Amino acid sequence: MLDNIRLSTDETAVVILDQTKLPGKVEYLRLMTAAQMRHAIMTLQVRGAPAIGIFAAYALYVLAKSIPEDADFRGTLKELKNYLSSTRPTAVNLNYALERMMDAAKNNGGGKERKKILTALGEECRRIQYEDAAVCRSISEYALSLLKDGWGILTYCNAGPIATSRYGTALGGIILGFERGYKFNVYCCETRPLMQGSRLTAFELTEEGVNTTLICDNMASRVMSEGKIQACFVGCDRVAANGDTANKIGTSMVAVLAKHYKIPFYVFCPTSTLDMKCKSGRDIVIETRSEEEVHTGFFKERIAPEDVKIYNPAFDVTPANLITAIVTERGICKAPYEDSLRMINRKKE
Amino acid sequence: MLDNIRLSTDETAVVILDQTKLPGKVEYLRLMTAAQMRHAIMTLQVRGAPAIGIFAAYALYVLAKSIPEDADFRGTLKELKNYLSSTRPTAVNLNYALERMMDAAKNNGGGKERKKILTALGEECRRIQYEDAAVCRSISEYALSLLKDGWGILTYCNAGPIATSRYGTALGGIILGFERGYKFNVYCCETRPLMQGSRLTAFELTEEGVNTTLICDNMASRVMSEGKIQACFVGCDRVAANGDTANKIGTSMVAVLAKHYKIPFYVFCPTSTLDMKCKSGRDIVIETRSEEEVHTGFFKERIAPEDVKIYNPAFDVTPANLITAIVTERGICKAPYEDSLRMINRKKE
Repeated sequence: MLDNIRLSTDETAVVILDQTKLPGKVEYLRLMTAAQMRHAIMTLQVRGAPAIGIFAAYALYVLAKSIPEDADFRGTLKELKNYLSSTRPTAVNLNYALERMMDAAKNNGGGKERKKILTALGEECRRIQYEDAAVCRSISEYALSLLKDGWGILTYCNAGPIATSRYGTALGGIILGFERGYKFNVYCCETRPLMQGSRLTAFELTEEGVNTTLICDNMASRVMSEGKIQACFVGCDRVAANGDTANKIGTSMVAVLAKHYKIPFYVFCPTSTLDMKCKSGRDIVIETRSEEEVHTGFFKERIAPEDVKIYNPAFDVTPANLITAIVTERGICKAPYEDSLRMINRKKE
Repeated sequence: MLDNIRLSTDETAVVILDQTKLPGKVEYLRLMTAAQMRHAIMTLQVRGAPAIGIFAAYALYVLAKSIPEDADFRGTLKELKNYLSSTRPTAVNLNYALERMMDAAKNNGGGKERKKILTALGEECRRIQYEDAAVCRSISEYALSLLKDGWGILTYCNAGPIATSRYGTALGGIILGFERGYKFNVYCCETRPLMQGSRLTAFELTEEGVNTTLICDNMASRVMSEGKIQACFVGCDRVAANGDTANKIGTSMVAVLAKHYKIPFYVFCPTSTLDMKCKSGRDIVIETRSEEEVHTGFFKERIAPEDVKIYNPAFDVTPANLITAIVTERGICKAPYEDSLRMINRKKE
């Protein structure tokens, strides 16, 4: 179990596990400035929808503490919030966590009493992390109820402990099951171009002791056709009110394959990742990332010719009709998702 | 247009373009010994089903010339043939070309007259290459008849000029169309783990001037869902009598996606790649390659944890029912493939 996001003891920094260095190096970063924190989100030193939210909340707290006494506290806080929230457009948790922090500031001190606001912010960011741990635990229990001992599970990208607080979302049921003696055969897709599957999921699962096989993304069809997979488990970055789900690029490929091979396809989604204001997948903004990630990235040298165009969408949308169920910390939702997600969301409020 | 496989002027070597060095370096290798030639096939310095066949024929000729006068000529020739043919199990052209060479040897001199046999072998290997050029040209014409100006075409792995003799199979129609003024938008999948799409297809198409966009394999679903693709074009390594097609790992993923998004999926297949003795995909041996290709390969350093298992099948089988048509040099075959492929194959004899 790695401690992926925490406040420094003196609360002047957020300390994170640098996810870009895994699995080769376990290296921690001590981030103190807004620029460092923004950089950490944009370069994926911290990644995973829940983890980004937790990190952003801690970041805003640390930055709030460093606002000079004579500055416009509320104005500066809002600027910092906007600066952090503009880093990645697709994951909903980033904004969700920052909004919660702003609400905490608003409800405590009415923008005047700096010390009271800081106390409230400090409590709120910790609460966001504690809550996420409880959410992941609950999702993991529901996830495990969907699995049978001995099953093959295909997972995609990384929705494990380091993408969240503990257990993870998509990996939570697998890890919890392993702790209880279940034997799973997990196939993890490497997840091009940033290799979260090989670098992070394979790392986390083998560290836990789970029987894990790494495949390239384009091998998912073959392992399914060979009968090796009984369930697909993926996380999500934003789920629309109708169940359409944005997640790492390639997730919709897994979903189409799962449907073809008649394998259930489950999305694991803290209710903080539900975006009820977003009617369908068409309203989800998909982040396009740099060409460099595809043509060079982790390679020894540029792998593609200089003059070829490159398209690098970081996410895709899996339509609700390809999803067997959306598993939240408050229960398992099935189609029609308009109804089941609305019910679950009400429960939250 | 790169000269990918040829005899050296003095006929003591086969000269090949080293495909493992592309697109960074255009480097030719002069291969003289059986060990060098076997190594070239196994390490994919030469690859692409038709190219492997052409290369193996030239290789056998060069090696036959170097058999000592006092050796058992036919016995040694057979040993050399077996040594070359055991390099890669999936591509049928390797054996097809070597069998043609052995037949040429048998029909000329009855195993006795060394000089006559060598002349026959020299003619046969050249004939195999000339024929492949004609085959590719014909396939390209049929391919072009399936395309409309302005279409988006998704291609996978590499079945272009350097995998064949000229034009290629899956890329032939695209290149021929470009020469005739068609404007296509080609999306090429990078093709993990050996990156034939980014290293070879992207290189060949941009060299020709075709508008080409490189994507990771896991982005195929997204580009299809965005309406960017009107046809999928792939090559093949072995086609069974019922139309089941072995091709680069991930091809069946593209086929399943194409079916889901209602996009036609075409396989381009010289009749030399048909294996009528092979009843269905179940009879095709799938080569499994080294773990190293997945965890390190082209990367700066090992990208996956030390103790994770890795599965690296080099091919998969696309079932006939996902294939819109199989395009050969003698015509376009449609389902039921048992009948259409048998008819085409008779035409050949």
